[in-house]
Amino acid sequence: MPKIDVAIIGASGYTGLELIKILINHPHFTIRYIATSEGGVSASELHPSLACVFEQDVQKADAKEVAKHATLAFLALPHKAAMGFAKELLDLHVKVVDLSADYRLELEAYEKHYCEHEDKEHLSEAVYGLPEIHKARIQNARLIANPGCYPTASILGILPFLPYLNKEAPIFIDAKSGVSGAGKKLTPTAHFVAINENMFAYNPLKHRHEPEIAEKLRQISAHAFEVNFIPHLLPLTRGMLVSSYLQTDETIDAKAVLRAYYADATFVRVRETPVEIKATAGTNFCDIFVTQKGKSLFVSSAIDNLLRGASSQAVVNANLMCGLDETAGIPMIAYVP
Amino acid sequence: MPKIDVAIIGASGYTGLELIKILINHPHFTIRYIATSEGGVSASELHPSLACVFEQDVQKADAKEVAKHATLAFLALPHKAAMGFAKELLDLHVKVVDLSADYRLELEAYEKHYCEHEDKEHLSEAVYGLPEIHKARIQNARLIANPGCYPTASILGILPFLPYLNKEAPIFIDAKSGVSGAGKKLTPTAHFVAINENMFAYNPLKHRHEPEIAEKLRQISAHAFEVNFIPHLLPLTRGMLVSSYLQTDETIDAKAVLRAYYADATFVRVRETPVEIKATAGTNFCDIFVTQKGKSLFVSSAIDNLLRGASSQAVVNANLMCGLDETAGIPMIAYVP
Amino acid sequence: MPKIDVAIIGASGYTGLELIKILINHPHFTIRYIATSEGGVSASELHPSLACVFEQDVQKADAKEVAKHATLAFLALPHKAAMGFAKELLDLHVKVVDLSADYRLELEAYEKHYCEHEDKEHLSEAVYGLPEIHKARIQNARLIANPGCYPTASILGILPFLPYLNKEAPIFIDAKSGVSGAGKKLTPTAHFVAINENMFAYNPLKHRHEPEIAEKLRQISAHAFEVNFIPHLLPLTRGMLVSSYLQTDETIDAKAVLRAYYADATFVRVRETPVEIKATAGTNFCDIFVTQKGKSLFVSSAIDNLLRGASSQAVVNANLMCGLDETAGIPMIAYVP
Amino acid sequence: MPKIDVAIIGASGYTGLELIKILINHPHFTIRYIATSEGGVSASELHPSLACVFEQDVQKADAKEVAKHATLAFLALPHKAAMGFAKELLDLHVKVVDLSADYRLELEAYEKHYCEHEDKEHLSEAVYGLPEIHKARIQNARLIANPGCYPTASILGILPFLPYLNKEAPIFIDAKSGVSGAGKKLTPTAHFVAINENMFAYNPLKHRHEPEIAEKLRQISAHAFEVNFIPHLLPLTRGMLVSSYLQTDETIDAKAVLRAYYADATFVRVRETPVEIKATAGTNFCDIFVTQKGKSLFVSSAIDNLLRGASSQAVVNANLMCGLDETAGIPMIAYVP
Repeated sequence: MPKIDVAIIGASGYTGLELIKILINHPHFTIRYIATSEGGVSASELHPSLACVFEQDVQKADAKEVAKHATLAFLALPHKAAMGFAKELLDLHVKVVDLSADYRLELEAYEKHYCEHEDKEHLSEAVYGLPEIHKARIQNARLIANPGCYPTASILGILPFLPYLNKEAPIFIDAKSGVSGAGKKLTPTAHFVAINENMFAYNPLKHRHEPEIAEKLRQISAHAFEVNFIPHLLPLTRGMLVSSYLQTDETIDAKAVLRAYYADATFVRVRETPVEIKATAGTNFCDIFVTQKGKSLFVSSAIDNLLRGASSQAVVNANLMCGLDETAGIPMIAYVP
Repeated sequence: MPKIDVAIIGASGYTGLELIKILINHPHFTIRYIATSEGGVSASELHPSLACVFEQDVQKADAKEVAKHATLAFLALPHKAAMGFAKELLDLHVKVVDLSADYRLELEAYEKHYCEHEDKEHLSEAVYGLPEIHKARIQNARLIANPGCYPTASILGILPFLPYLNKEAPIFIDAKSGVSGAGKKLTPTAHFVAINENMFAYNPLKHRHEPEIAEKLRQISAHAFEVNFIPHLLPLTRGMLVSSYLQTDETIDAKAVLRAYYADATFVRVRETPVEIKATAGTNFCDIFVTQKGKSLFVSSAIDNLLRGASSQAVVNANLMCGLDETAGIPMIAYVP
Repeated sequence: MPKIDVAIIGASGYTGLELIKILINHPHFTIRYIATSEGGVSASELHPSLACVFEQDVQKADAKEVAKHATLAFLALPHKAAMGFAKELLDLHVKVVDLSADYRLELEAYEKHYCEHEDKEHLSEAVYGLPEIHKARIQNARLIANPGCYPTASILGILPFLPYLNKEAPIFIDAKSGVSGAGKKLTPTAHFVAINENMFAYNPLKHRHEPEIAEKLRQISAHAFEVNFIPHLLPLTRGMLVSSYLQTDETIDAKAVLRAYYADATFVRVRETPVEIKATAGTNFCDIFVTQKGKSLFVSSAIDNLLRGASSQAVVNANLMCGLDETAGIPMIAYVP
Repeated sequence: MPKIDVAIIGASGYTGLELIKILINHPHFTIRYIATSEGGVSASELHPSLACVFEQDVQKADAKEVAKHATLAFLALPHKAAMGFAKELLDLHVKVVDLSADYRLELEAYEKHYCEHEDKEHLSEAVYGLPEIHKARIQNARLIANPGCYPTASILGILPFLPYLNKEAPIFIDAKSGVSGAGKKLTPTAHFVAINENMFAYNPLKHRHEPEIAEKLRQISAHAFEVNFIPHLLPLTRGMLVSSYLQTDETIDAKAVLRAYYADATFVRVRETPVEIKATAGTNFCDIFVTQKGKSLFVSSAIDNLLRGASSQAVVNANLMCGLDETAGIPMIAYVP
């Protein structure tokens, strides 16, 4: 089987690095083009841990150059910047997996929570890249909106219980993320002294992943649940733990529902004891645990925020778009211990 | 004013150490007797950080000896061991602040969640030592049941909103504690490698602090709320963050309710931005923040689990029992940075 | 005894905060004036952990205002800025404890490693504020050069062995500091993700504390030892561990030499087992351990970099300058656990 | 090329897990037998992070069973237990890579620092498995003594400079290891609260890796250098940083010597800036940096203590013993960020 040439646009951040790390050893993809907004360095100058492993030159990002070298591009860019590139690439017949928020939401919600949308043309054809719900559509897509990290862990945890939920009851999602989720930017809360031995909520009930979660749950269930999403910052580098508090209409056997729902899932592991962040760090797995007291459910889901919450899920989507096995090249062995 | 002689029984653990640290510099209390189950060491052999600061001999715990030397004793013992001592001390006319769970619950609840109660005689006179709700009773008490760390942070967060809560709606409490909360014992989850760069729930919906919270809320509100309590272990040493998810009957101005409720509180700080564990570490403060979306509230409360959640709250109780100012000797300056 | 009015210039950083925390409860000093380069905030806006504890207004720093309110000023300013203030304050008859590097070195060394010196007039009268070596001079000083954190821990460790050292052998100092040592500034190496689960040397053999250590050892011993100083950054917030590798001329009983040297020291604890950072965190203690193999010595010294390495040592110096007991108000109880 | 069947004896610890993680994806080795002293579980029961990835049954260790299934065995056992197995396996014609200390030292040194040797017969044929010095001998060996983690990082850092060292001067090695180096055992120093926000030396000048380093340096250089080895425990999970302090006879160009020595090395990366633990975590690389002041050298080397310091180096040795490319299946992509 011939190799498929791919491009990474936005190689300087954490998700760009994770894409490189996955694609270096991918059995069917070859990194043919790699770019940042500046270019002019080598990959190992950007990321010294890649020395002696991956030394390719990094270009100044240019869509036409991408189209010359690759048939699929991963965009690890900030929102707004991403849609500019995506539009141009799609017109040049390059498939796109966009890791930003630009194609995740319906137009109105996007413009309310982010900014004016500059590629309305392609917005409607974008497929939300959560393989557990849209596998067939992903296989036929040209443009994937790769889900946010919080929505991935939240939706996968809540999904099996949607048919049983009390429609009048609010959903509470208490989410906890490692600091890598905030990116490489130097901000006061990412200073070691600020977050080490500390924890706090941020943007409670106002985070932009709240409308993403609410919209997807509404699309799936045809009911507009009240979603209350509270993210917290954790004193650790990578990984995410999401606690969802749900109320059902009737008493169900929550463990059985969860097991049945994910009986055939490739990248969801149902756990009998509370999930741990570390068992998923370094992998594309989402681990899920549920317990209940009567009609009140506690669902705990864990992912690697940079992998299942970004880069490895992006490669799963790319695998599906290219007719490959979804597991091809996907990391499954955790950073444990 | 003459000094009041006090004793510490159970000096080897973290809360015992915190009691020593507070009482060394207390303006009115003098540590006259200090004991462990073994004795035969000095305080700085037990806790090397006390070298050159506090070198008193540590005795093998004996209630009669306590009674000879002290008028008030702090019990930093495991549950069950504590009630044996408390009983004897009270009969010898020594006042007791018990940091264990032995006198916190009504008899039936205690025996369901812990073990048979061996001091039913004094159980009914014990006062639950949360000064924000029982100040006057504490001032007249001989026996204080010092609250658990999780109940302290949870109840203080929920208290102002109790009159407004939807009685049909469950309360969800997502609590996060540093590892010191689990004590010095060598357990697999306290191993550095197990919890560093990790986080997980434990005993979800089954922790023994759940009935403590539920009972106190019921006693105050005269309604048996459904309380769902899920504790998590955090990769940090000290401090606790508790997120409470509440539903009100009508839309209230939650920030105004919170501010009004604690307008005169000495050891509760109402915050305008989400609370941080570190701003309370090393102090007796409970910091509280609230925000809301319609009738759904998110309350975030932070304490130092070893101080407000144990030892400094115990000394506040002792202050009140002895007619002192409640702030006497109480730590208020945080371990920041 | 009447209170002595003091000022803190440079209240926004970590050492400024530590000065406030110590002076709030100091028995003889009163904070009468507190300033930053901007002013116009309250102390608890600068440092939210001070809410309900210390709410004083923070001024825009002005030497004349200092002189109206205080007889002694602590300067917690960057080097260069400090000497400008110090000069003006001394001319206004205000005593100065300068926490910067501006008066620590002889002129030539200062100008080689920092910048041109703008207060040569007072440089010669400045006393290097390490009480273990200059107590009497500190008591009579108007201007104290408060030692750097690395030099404090290094010199105190090496001092007892100076008379025994092989003059031809280089001294190697392998020093490790928590991230708070680098200050609040947002830098790539202080980003949580950069230093968490990591450690590395920085400025090896080129750090500006190397000439400070070398100069002081030379002044004391009248021999210019070759000092090789290698600092490392540690993934923890506060505290410092310094390993000194020494060679003696003859075989000595290093433990006995160490014990004898510090037999009467107030703030040095000689340890029989390797020292730990945490037992000194929150205190002014320097803990020291030594072991040897023949003529090769390993000396391990630990301090709190922000306290013994800056703010509490500054207050000890101020105590001595004002004829107070050196222990007045000095923190001695560690942040353990 | 047919797969080579291998066995892992001692699968429950960290190095056992790392062996599994490497061998799962190895292109030429197949794990045919896996055992602990107890057996009777599955691999994912031992290590929950392996769920859905590697579910093989774990046996009660038995040498004869190993010989039926595998041609090469990795022993991840405590010292003493290892030599019992190794002896039996060699007699059954199974090649052995022993990760314990049992075959690393000459007889006298072993018995002085460990215990009586019970397999003197094979001790003399064991090859010390540091590929940078013994590649050819490893290729022909039946029994490999896999080096200790500290010796690996120390020797690789010092090796290039051995010909230039002052033979009279002591070597000082200040080594720092993450907590995983101490294994899974529950010990007071591995308790999260004991080591978090802390650091300390342990067994200074008395650690059993000191004679291992000294012996290997002596064998290579034909001179018995005085080696002073001081290990420290770091508050992080994996990785090791070793600072070596050396003195040369003449002034050399240390950077040039280092670069030249490792010009063709596969798994040593010479760095121009001080090395970082994290850039090696998850890989078999040893990163090395050197700087100097006259004849005094500072060499800083970093490895992943569980990989280059144990399991991945073991697989490199196995590759060489089996005539494979030394890089086959060896992890080279770091756990960054």
